[in-house]
This record gives sequence, C-alpha cells and structure tokens, in this order.
Amino acid sequence: MKHHQYALTPPMGWNSWDCYGATVREDEVKGNADYMATNLKKYGWEYVVVDIQWSEPGAISSAYRPFVPLEMDEYSRLIPAVNRFPSAKDGKGFKPLADYIHGLGLKFGIHIMRGVPRQAVHQNTKILGTEVTARDIAKPNSICPWNTDMYGVDCSKKGAQEYYDSIFKLYAEWEVDFVKVDDIADSKLYGAHTDEIKMIRKAIDCCGRPMVLSLSPGPAPLEQASLLEENANMWRMTDDFWDLWELLYNMFDRCYKWSKNIGPGYWPDADMLPLGHIGIRSVDGGASDRYTRFTRDEQVTMMTLWSIFRSPLMFGGELRDNDEWTLSLLTNEEVLDMHKNSHSARQVYRQDDKVVWTAKGDEENLYVALFNIGNEKQKVTVNLNQLDLPSSKQVHLRDLWKCKHLGSVSNEISYELSPHSAKLLKISL
Amino acid sequence: MKHHQYALTPPMGWNSWDCYGATVREDEVKGNADYMATNLKKYGWEYVVVDIQWSEPGAISSAYRPFVPLEMDEYSRLIPAVNRFPSAKDGKGFKPLADYIHGLGLKFGIHIMRGVPRQAVHQNTKILGTEVTARDIAKPNSICPWNTDMYGVDCSKKGAQEYYDSIFKLYAEWEVDFVKVDDIADSKLYGAHTDEIKMIRKAIDCCGRPMVLSLSPGPAPLEQASLLEENANMWRMTDDFWDLWELLYNMFDRCYKWSKNIGPGYWPDADMLPLGHIGIRSVDGGASDRYTRFTRDEQVTMMTLWSIFRSPLMFGGELRDNDEWTLSLLTNEEVLDMHKNSHSARQVYRQDDKVVWTAKGDEENLYVALFNIGNEKQKVTVNLNQLDLPSSKQVHLRDLWKCKHLGSVSNEISYELSPHSAKLLKISL
Amino acid sequence: MKHHQYALTPPMGWNSWDCYGATVREDEVKGNADYMATNLKKYGWEYVVVDIQWSEPGAISSAYRPFVPLEMDEYSRLIPAVNRFPSAKDGKGFKPLADYIHGLGLKFGIHIMRGVPRQAVHQNTKILGTEVTARDIAKPNSICPWNTDMYGVDCSKKGAQEYYDSIFKLYAEWEVDFVKVDDIADSKLYGAHTDEIKMIRKAIDCCGRPMVLSLSPGPAPLEQASLLEENANMWRMTDDFWDLWELLYNMFDRCYKWSKNIGPGYWPDADMLPLGHIGIRSVDGGASDRYTRFTRDEQVTMMTLWSIFRSPLMFGGELRDNDEWTLSLLTNEEVLDMHKNSHSARQVYRQDDKVVWTAKGDEENLYVALFNIGNEKQKVTVNLNQLDLPSSKQVHLRDLWKCKHLGSVSNEISYELSPHSAKLLKISL
Amino acid sequence: MKHHQYALTPPMGWNSWDCYGATVREDEVKGNADYMATNLKKYGWEYVVVDIQWSEPGAISSAYRPFVPLEMDEYSRLIPAVNRFPSAKDGKGFKPLADYIHGLGLKFGIHIMRGVPRQAVHQNTKILGTEVTARDIAKPNSICPWNTDMYGVDCSKKGAQEYYDSIFKLYAEWEVDFVKVDDIADSKLYGAHTDEIKMIRKAIDCCGRPMVLSLSPGPAPLEQASLLEENANMWRMTDDFWDLWELLYNMFDRCYKWSKNIGPGYWPDADMLPLGHIGIRSVDGGASDRYTRFTRDEQVTMMTLWSIFRSPLMFGGELRDNDEWTLSLLTNEEVLDMHKNSHSARQVYRQDDKVVWTAKGDEENLYVALFNIGNEKQKVTVNLNQLDLPSSKQVHLRDLWKCKHLGSVSNEISYELSPHSAKLLKISL
Repeated sequence: MKHHQYALTPPMGWNSWDCYGATVREDEVKGNADYMATNLKKYGWEYVVVDIQWSEPGAISSAYRPFVPLEMDEYSRLIPAVNRFPSAKDGKGFKPLADYIHGLGLKFGIHIMRGVPRQAVHQNTKILGTEVTARDIAKPNSICPWNTDMYGVDCSKKGAQEYYDSIFKLYAEWEVDFVKVDDIADSKLYGAHTDEIKMIRKAIDCCGRPMVLSLSPGPAPLEQASLLEENANMWRMTDDFWDLWELLYNMFDRCYKWSKNIGPGYWPDADMLPLGHIGIRSVDGGASDRYTRFTRDEQVTMMTLWSIFRSPLMFGGELRDNDEWTLSLLTNEEVLDMHKNSHSARQVYRQDDKVVWTAKGDEENLYVALFNIGNEKQKVTVNLNQLDLPSSKQVHLRDLWKCKHLGSVSNEISYELSPHSAKLLKISL
Repeated sequence: MKHHQYALTPPMGWNSWDCYGATVREDEVKGNADYMATNLKKYGWEYVVVDIQWSEPGAISSAYRPFVPLEMDEYSRLIPAVNRFPSAKDGKGFKPLADYIHGLGLKFGIHIMRGVPRQAVHQNTKILGTEVTARDIAKPNSICPWNTDMYGVDCSKKGAQEYYDSIFKLYAEWEVDFVKVDDIADSKLYGAHTDEIKMIRKAIDCCGRPMVLSLSPGPAPLEQASLLEENANMWRMTDDFWDLWELLYNMFDRCYKWSKNIGPGYWPDADMLPLGHIGIRSVDGGASDRYTRFTRDEQVTMMTLWSIFRSPLMFGGELRDNDEWTLSLLTNEEVLDMHKNSHSARQVYRQDDKVVWTAKGDEENLYVALFNIGNEKQKVTVNLNQLDLPSSKQVHLRDLWKCKHLGSVSNEISYELSPHSAKLLKISL
Repeated sequence: MKHHQYALTPPMGWNSWDCYGATVREDEVKGNADYMATNLKKYGWEYVVVDIQWSEPGAISSAYRPFVPLEMDEYSRLIPAVNRFPSAKDGKGFKPLADYIHGLGLKFGIHIMRGVPRQAVHQNTKILGTEVTARDIAKPNSICPWNTDMYGVDCSKKGAQEYYDSIFKLYAEWEVDFVKVDDIADSKLYGAHTDEIKMIRKAIDCCGRPMVLSLSPGPAPLEQASLLEENANMWRMTDDFWDLWELLYNMFDRCYKWSKNIGPGYWPDADMLPLGHIGIRSVDGGASDRYTRFTRDEQVTMMTLWSIFRSPLMFGGELRDNDEWTLSLLTNEEVLDMHKNSHSARQVYRQDDKVVWTAKGDEENLYVALFNIGNEKQKVTVNLNQLDLPSSKQVHLRDLWKCKHLGSVSNEISYELSPHSAKLLKISL
Repeated sequence: MKHHQYALTPPMGWNSWDCYGATVREDEVKGNADYMATNLKKYGWEYVVVDIQWSEPGAISSAYRPFVPLEMDEYSRLIPAVNRFPSAKDGKGFKPLADYIHGLGLKFGIHIMRGVPRQAVHQNTKILGTEVTARDIAKPNSICPWNTDMYGVDCSKKGAQEYYDSIFKLYAEWEVDFVKVDDIADSKLYGAHTDEIKMIRKAIDCCGRPMVLSLSPGPAPLEQASLLEENANMWRMTDDFWDLWELLYNMFDRCYKWSKNIGPGYWPDADMLPLGHIGIRSVDGGASDRYTRFTRDEQVTMMTLWSIFRSPLMFGGELRDNDEWTLSLLTNEEVLDMHKNSHSARQVYRQDDKVVWTAKGDEENLYVALFNIGNEKQKVTVNLNQLDLPSSKQVHLRDLWKCKHLGSVSNEISYELSPHSAKLLKISL
C-alpha cells in the first residue's frame, strides 16, 4: 500500500489543539514552528499542524460556536479565516504559511472535518468540476455529534468523490503534508464512517502530493483494523486524551489491544501529548490555562509507553513556554531512537498494576519498559525467558531516561518503582 | 389534567398521509372534508388533518426532498406553501381552510415536526417576542433521522419556550383544533424527546385554544407512559402502519402491552387506517397507488381491534373513492358506540394465534372480540367465567358487524373463525 | 381474575430476610409472630414470612453456601431443615408452625426459589404423581445467577406442571397463605421467567387453598405488566432494597413508572422496609448487625411513599427490638387507612428534587404527599388545580404523621421541607 | 512464547464431530487413523481428534443428554467410557488408543469442556494433590449454555489451578498431543472465559508434554486477540461451521478481520471442513447422514480460503468413505505447500462479491486467490500493483488446483468465475 511510504516511522510534531483549542492564529503557528526548527527538528520532530476551526473568524475557545458562518470559496470548500491567518488573503489559502514552514525545513499539517459544510448545503453552492451542488451530495442526516459545521457526504451520489477530490486538490496546491480528518474514526451516533475514509484515501491518492492521513476521534474500532491500515497512516485509539491519570492508566489496555495492528506506515495513535503549557485558550479536558497536571513520573510513564508502543508523538503544549524538563522529554536521543527504529513491541505481561513491555531493536539489542501503574510503590520484575532470552544469559542494561549504564544481570530484571512511574531499559546481548 | 378534556373519546377523523404522502393540496383537503360532512359526521368523525410538508412548495411524493427551502414567516415559523394552499395567500396561513372546515361542522388539524427550521438557524432569523434568534435556541446536533427540515430546540436556552409559544399562538390564530407532532415520540437516534414534549404541552396550555395533541412516530416507549399521559392526548404505539398483515399481527401485542395506560383523554394510538384508495401520491409502505391490500376479513379484524382497544381512528384513504364496503366499516353505529362508550378493555387471553378481548359497556352489557390471527381456520372459545360472569348464566349475544342477534348461550362462547378474521359480540346480561 | 381476591389491599407483614438472611430459626419466627399479634395485628399487619434457604441445615448468613445438600422429600420437594425448624420433624413440614401462627390470628408465608432442586436432578429423584423424574423436567441451562439450589423447569416437558402442582399441594397441606417466589421476576441472565410464572399460577389455582403470590427479585419489566397482573398479586419493582438513600431516591422514579399498573389484588412492590434492628445474621446491603441507617426523616419519606403508592408493606427488622419510634411508624392509623383505602395514586409533578404525589380517598377527601428528596432545604408547593380542585376553594389540611389539623388554605399548599423529608396531608373538601 | 513452537504451521488432522457427533467409538477412531496413515500422512495430515462426550457411555447423537452420569475417576477427572473405548479399561484411559495412533506415526487429540464436572460438584469428590473438593473450586453459576456436564472453575479459589494441573497431568500420562477446549472462547451467556484460558495455559506449560491448545466455540472476540495468542495455538473465528453456503460466505469477513492476528504458532481457526461423508450420527447443522451439501465449486472455494488464510485444516468427514474428488482436495501438494509455507496473507480488496486475497511465498513467488462469492458469473480482476508489483512486469501464472501453467501476463490478472467459485494462482516473478 503506497501510502504507507509517507510515514515509515511514527509521525512526530506539534498540534495547536491542546494549547489553543479552536482559535490558533498564524503568528502562534509560526512561533511554534520557529521553536521546532531551532530546538526539535534535529531530533526528528517535523509536523506543524493547525487544528480545528481555522475557517471560523470568531473562534474564541475550544468550545464551538454553533452554526456560525465559516469562510468558504465558491466551490463549497472551507478556506482559512483571514483575520486569523493574514497571509491567506486574496485567496492564497494556507500556501504562504506552508511556504514559511517548509522554509524552516518542516512539514505543514491541517485538520479538517469529514463532510461538506452545512452552510454550503443550505446555500446550495457548487462542487468543483461537476454539475452538482453541495445539496446533492450531502448525506442529510449524517452529522457530527459535537460540531455543527458539516454534513456527511453520501458516497453513492454523483459528485461525492469529486468533492473530496476537489478539497484535496486545494490542499495539494497549498502544499499540505499532513491531514487530520475528524468525526470519522468513531462517532457516538454512527460508528466509524468507512465509506468516507475510502473516498478520502482515493482523493489523496490522486491529488498529486503525498500527505499523511490521520483519523480522529477515537476509539477507532479494532474490528476495522484492516480497513484503517489500508486507508490511513494513523488513527486514534482513544477519545481525546488529556492530562488526567485515569486516561493514561486506560491507555495501557488500549495499546495492548492494538499492538498487533502496527507497522511501517500504519500507526494506532494514543493522541497528543498534553505536556508543558496547555489550555491557553481551551477549556477542554476539564481545565483551562495551566502547566500540565501530570507529575514528572507520569510524564515519563506516558513518554515511555508512547515511545515503546510507537504511537505518533504530537506535542500539545505551547512550545515556546517549555521549561528545561519538558524539553528534555522531547530530546532524549536514545528514547527517540527506540521510537523510530524498534519493532515488534508487545506487552510481556500485566499483573494487576504491574505492566511490562518489550520491543526489539537491532540484532543485538532489545528494549524493556517496566511500569508501576498502581498507587503504591512496588517491585516490577521480568524474567529473561519472558523476553525469549535464556535465563542464564548475562545481559547488559542501560537506563534510557537517565542515560546511564546499570551493569549486567542474568535471570531476571527487577526494580522497585514509585507509583505511576516507569523504567525504560535497553538490553545489550 | 385539563388537556384530557379535549379528547374525552378517542379522536376520529381523516389524515392525508396514506393517500397523498407529503403533497396534499387544498382542494383535496376540502374534497375529503366535504365527503366527511356528508357521509361520516353523523357517526362521530370530525377531524380533517393535513399531514407533513405543507410548507414545501415542491413536494411530489411521500419521499422528502432534502434541504429544500420551505415557506416561513419572519419569525422562523413555517407557513403553508401558497401554490398548494391558495387560500393561505397574503399571510393568511391556514385560517381560511380552517374556516371552511369549521363551516362544515368539522375540526381542523395539522402536522408539524418537532423543532425549529434548519433554514431559520442557518439564516439566523428572529424568534417572536424575544431578542434571540433561531440559532440561539437550536439544539445543534438534535436532528430527525429521516427528514432534513428541523433542528431540535434546546429547552435550557432562553427563548426556547417562547419559540414553541409563538408557533402555537399562530396555530391558535389559524383556529387549529388538532396538532400531530412528529419526530418526537420515538427516534432511532435519540429515543423520545421528553423535554420538547413538555414545552409543547405548555405552549398549548397557554395558546388560548384547546388543541388535541398527537405524538409520532412510534413505538413510544412504555417506560414513558405516565409522561405521555400527562402531556399528550394520543401517541403512537408503533412505527408507521400500512396494509401489511405482519404489521396488523404485531399490533395485538402492542395493544396488550398498552392496555392499562388508556383512559378518557389519553389514547395510545395504533396509527391510521390504511383502507380504501391509498398510495395515490405516496410510495411509503412498500407500494404505490392501490386499493388497500388488506382482505375484507383483515379489515374487519383491524377495525375490531382498534375499536375495542379504543385507539384513535384516523382514516387514511381518499374518502371520495370509498366503495360501499369501505364506507360500511366506518358507519357501523353499534361498533362505533362501543368505541366511544366502552371502557376497561383487556385481553382475556392469547393462546398462540387465538386471541380474545373484552370491554365493558354499561351495567347490562359487555363486549367480546374473538380473533383468529393464525393462517388456518380454528375454533376460538371463551368461558363466561373468563369474562367474570358465572358459567351458568344465560347471556344474550349480538354480532355487531352483522347487526344481528345470535340467541342465548351459557357456559362458553365459541366460534369457528377463518384465518385473519374476527368476531365482535355484544353480550347482554 | 380470581386470585386478585386474595389480596384486595396491599399485603402487610414481616419477613425474616433483612434481619436473619438465609438463617432464621423457628423460635425467631414465633417470637416475631407473637410480637405482631400483640402489637401490630390490630393495625392490619398479618403475614409472617420465612424467607430463603429454610431447607438448608447449615445456613449461617445471607451468603449462600454453594451446592450444599438441602432437605428434600422423596418427590424432589424441599422441606424444612429440622435442626432449624424442630416442629417440622417426622415429615410434618411447616404445618405445625403454620398452626401456631394461625392460632395467633395471623397468616403464614414462605419463600421458594423457582425450579426443581439441582440435587434432585443429579440424583434423578421422582416427581409426585408422574412417571418422570426431576431430570426429565429440568431446563438444563436455566439457573439462578446468585444461588445454586435449583434448575429451572421446562414447561414443554411432561411432568413440569405436575411438579409445580405437587409442591403447591404440599404447601396447601401445610396451610401456607403466602408464597414469595424468587429468581423469577427478573434475572440478569435471562429476564423474567414468564412460563414458570404461569405454571405457578395454575398450580396455586388448583391447590385448593388461596395463597398470595409474590414475585422476586426486581426490577420486574414494565413491558410484562399485564402478564404480572394476570398471574401474581405482587412483584418487585426493584432489586433488593436496603437502608441506603440512593436506593430510596431511585424508588420515586420506579413508583412513577408503575403507578398505572396497580389495583385491588395486584401490587407493584417496593420491597421490604429495612427499619429497626436489621442485619443480625446478614451481610447483604453492605452492612451487618445495626439499627437502620436511614435517618428519621428518611424513614418517614419511605413510609410515606410506600403508603401513598400502596406498595405492600413487609417489615424487615427484628420486631422484638423495635423502639418506640419504629413502632410508631407501623401503627399510625391514619396513614394506614390511606394505605388500605385510597386509590388512584399519581405523581402530580416532579421538578428536580421536589416531588408531589396525590391519591384519592372517599368522596370528601384526598391525600397529598410533598417530598424534598434533594440535599438542601427547599419549599415544595402544589396548586389546588394541580389536584383537580378549583384554586379558589377553601380546603382543610391535616398532617397525618403529626396527627394534627393545620387549618384551611386556598390556592396552593406549600411547605418548607428539610432534605430527604416528606409531609403527608389529608385534604378535606 | 514457547507454546508457539508446538504448532509452527497450522495444524492438520481429522476430528470426529462432523460425522459422529458426540458418539464416536474406538474402532471408528482407529479406522480413520489407519486411513490417514495410509493416504494422508505424507501430505502433512497428522492429528486424530476425539471430539466431545467421550465420557458418556450412552451418547447416541450430536444432541447431548442432560445430566446423565459420566465416567470419572476418584479425583473428579472425566475418563473414557469403556463401552465405547474398550482399550480404556482398567483405568488405562486413552493411553492405549494414543499408543495405537502414535504407532501409525500420527498424533492424538481430545476434546474437553471447560470446568469441573457438575456430578463431581454435587457428589463433592476430591481434587488430586489438594485438600479441597470439586465443590470448593466450582464457580457456581458459570455454566455452558448448551451442555450440562460442567461448572466453570473459579480461579480465585485454592485448588483451582491444581485441578487443571491434575487433568493435564492425566492427559500427559495418556500422551495426548492436542487438546480442544470447548465452552471457553465464546459464550452467549458470559463472553470469553479468559481466566480459565490462562489456567489451562499454565497447566499445559507444567504438564511435561507439549500439547497444541485449541479453543472453541467461536466467534472468539477480536478484542482478545493478544490474550488468545499468548495462551493458545488456535481459536475459533466462528460458531460451528457446516456445509451451508451462507456460513462460507460469512467466513470471508471473518478472515479479513483476523488476518493481522496470525503467525507461526497462533492460528485463528475457520473450523472443521464438513466434506465427504458427514452427519452419520449427528443432526447438527440442520441435516443428518449425507455427503456434504457443498457443490464442488464451493468445496474449492472453501479449501482455497482456508489454505491461503492459513486456518488449521481439520477434516470432518468419515475418511474411509472419501471418494476420489474429496481425497484430491486433501492431497494437492502445491496448495498444501502454500498452506504450510506462505506468509503475510491479506485481502487485496473486496468489491461487493468479488474478493481477492494474496499471500507471500518465498522471494520469487507469491499467491493470489480470486473469488466470486456472488450468485452470478462475473469477472474478477487484480492489478499487479495491487499486489505491490510493477504493472509492467511480466509474471508467470500457475493454476494450483488444476496443476497447470497458464503462461505469462503483465498489468493485470483477470478471470471470469462461476458463482461461488475460486481460482488459486501462484505467481512466479
């Protein structure tokens, strides 16, 4: 499947949602891109993604304003609100901003909602390259349960595929590299919208530009794992993830369930990293402007799970407000090397709140992550033969977060861990 | 509950849906009203109801046209399409048609959809007597699963009750007597919309005119029986009923289940009678222009069940095309006397496809209906003591459909019945 | 329906479950019967009911002992464990205890589980008056989800009805007046067991002795209201009720939902009254030996709801340990007169945590109960016209729990109520 | 995971269920083993499996006899019924039969039900090597929905693991090579019994003999894919499969869904092959004694899907009654080579009733299966680039069922296929 080539390692980047909700502005996007170019690019971070509602001139928070007018071209295609993205003036769309980001050596991504704008349907505007109108292709009663912008598109209608083709053609003109499509991987009303996923796949395949395809929200259904892999590069395993321990705790089960359905080019997604300064203009996740509510132990636990599982890594905080600690989580070369180059990750066992994962490195290395996700200190142990190594073998351990050698052990690896904490080890044979 | 006074016996009338789908025109309404005045009024038939989509100038069938413009006043209130209802010109609404029908000594009813027009929301028009707009009161993601006209109304919003008040004020000005509200008693997406039911109750209570309130579609949930009784006069026990034996067969269970939740002013509704000439401009119910597909035995079975259960009786066919047989079903005084004046109907027993119902008349009479709803001829029997009578008692029987005396029996009543047929008896003590 | 005659008013009595779990002994039953005869009989309390596991010699708590041998006669019928019920020796069963209770002018009830003993099935013992064995009539995979004593009985098998006939014949010989059948009105595995309910109805009808039939556990399905009425005298609206506010809070909804399906002889049942000294040998309901955890306000709230709704009243505590307050709740003649003789109870309205019920007395009286089921003090008001009285009417109020006149009001009745409290008024016109 | 070593290719063998239901006898098992040794062994067929109820002396059909006594040793362990398995006399169990089959160079398998015998629980017999009894470890209300032999085992009870250890110790003594555990991978009452799956894994791991573990019935939940892989070698994707087109049709979806969760040692199982002479003493699957109802085209379709997907292959018919055609389906070396040695099978696409699968062979080969599962003849086409080959490449095709070369093609592969038929091709690069 050709599109797998577009994301041979799990995508890494920044997304505006956790800090700016539905309201991010061009200067903020550029500012974060600048930071990324300076501080993170060399570690593999590359995508800069503008999240939801960039067509809405009056967006003020993470809460959507129902039924408000969106900026749209004559062909029913949403375009950036010029008051928020000044470079988009004169119909230039996101091209100037993409140019800026490309100029930094980074890649540019946008969020879209599945479907055709409701305002296009009610105004009955045209669909590019067809004789049909928005009204003709809309699936009348296919709506998003939490946002009023769009109607679904009915794949059985003439002009439906052409509509999706037309918007991806526009994104190709803008030189978009990454598209996060929302209201599509799960819906409390309707489940996953598989027909529209397939139309979008086709539209990208013929738009003339490689784009990574990311599907939201979750939980995407495991029953659809094959279809997701065949059509997308990443899809959410979970509803929105925030800096709440319970959500992190539950991610262990989700990763376990999805660990067979991962490979070069198709990445189940544990969602953005709500780290650093978040909630600046967002009230989602039960809080507003703050530094992440995760403790440092929890932050390491999260980064360890995301990295050994090989989830995409999308930072959610305002990068320019990172402290040294937060930056250090994003720039650990050994951890990121595992994230980029390991394979065959699997949960070795889970016993109540002790969890052990392993992944393979090159022929002489493997990785082990020990987690204590309980509320009491406890010892977490793994036997070498649970890692498919002979018990008697002498192996060398390195602590990846602390960047230090721990000496050799045989038989078993065992550490006492604080509550909510993790230890990430590289084993050399 | 005062509104129970508006329908102390189960409503009887004509509704345009079964014959004209979403397309009925003023002349057709008048023609049916004329027929009713001449032929049926003296038997108690009185409501003439214009069903769905009377604001849609281009309606052509029972199939809805998604997103088409509807006629609406400046206050977001739908008004009759003048091309279909010429007397509504100059903003007169349904007043002239209501006058015509009242002039015949009959009553006038309309159908409405729950909610506020989507076009009002997207155009952001005003709500009468408030400073809010349609957009402010809409419940963004509350839609009908089968029609694109409306958004639900959010009862927690300022102006929500005022909107419902404003439309019922208009209907009171038009002198409407009966309102069938749709997409409210059940929804495959959301269940029953109890908040909007309550707002409508309040709106009618303060509109200055008594109106019978009928709720659709079904099946309304039995769990909400008390709420329905407290707010409405009738509500559907079933999804749309058509001239198909299976639907009639299933109605026996529905009636059984609802038989305790019935009384003067609140009537579980078995839906319209698809008799005579139906489907003229409708493709619903799996067929088009036709005489009813029910056999004569099945028609009697249906009329017997509806009458002894005391469902509302709303005739669905084009009255002017009635043949003598069909008319005879609507003008049997003894059956209609039971429908109007009996009480305490109950299923005596059901054994496979033998079903017996009884109801009480005045102190000296009771009614028994014997049904064979199987596919083979069989004898259906009821013992007098199953009717709370002494076995030894000598009772007199009269066949209500045949209008003839059957002599006396004691101990039991027993008849051999053809498949799908019924026998309706009045017992004199 | 003849069996309605056996319980023309809601049954009142004592049941051993709340205080003694599965372990009650003959002396304790007699002690409570003595107390009832002396202190409660004149107020209408009459049933003395031995709850679950009376065939189990080793019962020690409310927790069941899986698979232990039960005492059984040669015909697969469970009989009392003689170590717990000494008068049952020599095969006398419960006859001597029933005689004792009848001698006090009271009535005797027992609990049984739906089905045939598993031990009878595995030992393949006989069924009285048939040539079949327990194995032949058992429904192999119909079990109780919480107790291992029985298999369900398959009504399609020869001998099935005969088995139920044989046990009720035995109970008739014992002179049992009341049977509480368990694992039948609801089951988390299978729903209500309607076939066995009907077999039991038939068995009672031909056993030669009137017995009140009570069905457990709940919630019985509202969808089966007609079937329940046709076959039983009372059935549980709820899973086991204990002295926890949340359970009491939820009962308001349950009573509302069932309020149309009640009448002389058929009584939806809010379950036993966990008052006074309970949990003596029980660990059910999240607690053990204690005085009820309900506050006095909550106790009045419960008694008021049960009484105006006309639930059966089955006291659950050790009667001999009643204090004066508890006894007073059971001996208020005016409240009990309403419980016995009122009719047409209905919830007038519920607005958040304000709830008002009314019921009719004789022609010159009606009852109103005002409830504050919130956590803050608040005023609860009802307008006279909500009670179908003219607003202007002058009516006289009496506080039934305080047994005092409150003077006259017109227009509305309004009281400030403490959290979780109720006021019960009789209105004279 | 060590147990994956026990089944590095998908198991192949014979199972008694489809022909003999619950009744197979030793002579029949030996007869089929003899046939396998002579005719099939060289093609890789090796397991001979005695299916359900071998402890039941009176089994007469595929229908179970409820509650009948089973043969059991003093430690609550079921043993073969000697009247059916004469060599099991004197407590020898299945050892003599296993010896016989081993003597033919084949492997021996048995079926068991999850749990401990109900008769052991009710007789309260001992558990080997413990002081507890069957009653102590039973999970009282964990039953099989379709068979009365067993209660589940409660893993939290002392002695539970020991019970499972004791039965697998016995099977190791008998030299069993394959165990099919039933009522465990899915249950209409309870879902998958994951705790008991884990206990069984442990019991095998410490029994001292490698045994392939097969779990039934299906559909096993995809959500449990990781747990299944970690504990078993094969598990059913479906409820019982029979010779009915609809079941075969649905298998395409099941295989698609599971195609990522397969690898050396863990095999989702499409169930037995109901081919040849089946139903000899079985009435399951809606028919009795017959030759398979599948047409020859359907048989090829089934064998093709099972083989390219790499399902285990368990023949269900009486081998000795095979005709030449049936035998030919089991002895096609090229097809079986693909079944044994291909990898990475995936559905290329499904468009209505056209389905294409591919799998990889060695570096110079790949496989393609074209299916027409519709009811009309149609052309099924796959482009080389859908197989990740350059369109322009010239590739060589071989028809595996016909064992003949088809010449070379480029660009696309396309065949007109009869309804319900398949074409299986090997592509040489």
